[in-house]
Amino acid sequence: MERLSQQIKFICELDKLKRVQRQTWLMDGRRQENSAEHSWHITVMAMVLAEYAPARELDLARVVQMLLVHDIVEIDAGDTFCYDTAAVAYQAADEERAAERLFGLLPEDQAEYFRGLWNEFEGHETSESLLANALDRLQPILNNYYSGGKSWQIHGIAKDQVRQRNRIMGDGAPELWAFVGDLLQQAVDRGMLKD
Amino acid sequence: MERLSQQIKFICELDKLKRVQRQTWLMDGRRQENSAEHSWHITVMAMVLAEYAPARELDLARVVQMLLVHDIVEIDAGDTFCYDTAAVAYQAADEERAAERLFGLLPEDQAEYFRGLWNEFEGHETSESLLANALDRLQPILNNYYSGGKSWQIHGIAKDQVRQRNRIMGDGAPELWAFVGDLLQQAVDRGMLKD
Repeated sequence: MERLSQQIKFICELDKLKRVQRQTWLMDGRRQENSAEHSWHITVMAMVLAEYAPARELDLARVVQMLLVHDIVEIDAGDTFCYDTAAVAYQAADEERAAERLFGLLPEDQAEYFRGLWNEFEGHETSESLLANALDRLQPILNNYYSGGKSWQIHGIAKDQVRQRNRIMGDGAPELWAFVGDLLQQAVDRGMLKD
Repeated sequence: MERLSQQIKFICELDKLKRVQRQTWLMDGRRQENSAEHSWHITVMAMVLAEYAPARELDLARVVQMLLVHDIVEIDAGDTFCYDTAAVAYQAADEERAAERLFGLLPEDQAEYFRGLWNEFEGHETSESLLANALDRLQPILNNYYSGGKSWQIHGIAKDQVRQRNRIMGDGAPELWAFVGDLLQQAVDRGMLKD
């Protein structure tokens, strides 16, 4: 029963990810999304878009599990707006502490397993991690575009910043990165994004 | 490019699940949760609680994919409150039409795959489906309990209704169902749930 009670405690803690607000807006522009919704969205995206990973053999189950877990640290560390370079500098240490505490709520074997998934996502090395990271970048770009560029305009973001910040997509899903290139040009043409 | 554009259309449609409100409240009682958040929560729960499925061999990746997809039909059909028996009677036909339209946005091979996952979840037959359904019931019970019985009180729900409505949990995860039995008794003792 000790094991189950540790697991239930972790599961209750997860509820707090629904309260972590992101800078991305829902596509209808009604409100900003939270990190739990974002995590669900990109995980289903992995099921649909896995075929764009250049690797011949890809462990989709691993990609899915990485994406489900990758933002849990935000319960303690909050969401860092990716264009806020000062905040990004402090992010790693905060997230490290958060991973320690949050995954540490689980029984030891599961704590290690979850920690391994999170480390792999952050490591940007395996094919699975590269695809997961590409999708983590693609989703906000889609939401920004289809909400009329709302978050880009609020923060005065230019196309080169988006390209620079998300170029890692080229490693994980080159065809999707090419698609994003076209989308960003359309966003500029329609006045949603600075050139 | 036709294939990618179908896939992106489906991914944009998914954003609407974030707008489907459920009768369950966040554990801090601040607001009701939506079906995208709920889907994320129970999918991570599957990673943590899979060991409680009685089957010797369980395809966890299949459970996870089923849970990620099981509520997508609510984009068209809405969330049906499980204690509203009149609404539950109409639910099946609405969800059938929703599955047809929504999964039909995908390229044919993926439409079939997603439809297969949804059918398996609704079929309550495989070990994977039984565990997935058990977790789909457990999460609202946890959220109701830890939000002080908020949804039970608003709708005047009694313990026997909760037991009757969720007894399918006994097939998918007998130990978790026993845990829920204790939790419901505590909810009655603390005046959150009618006896």
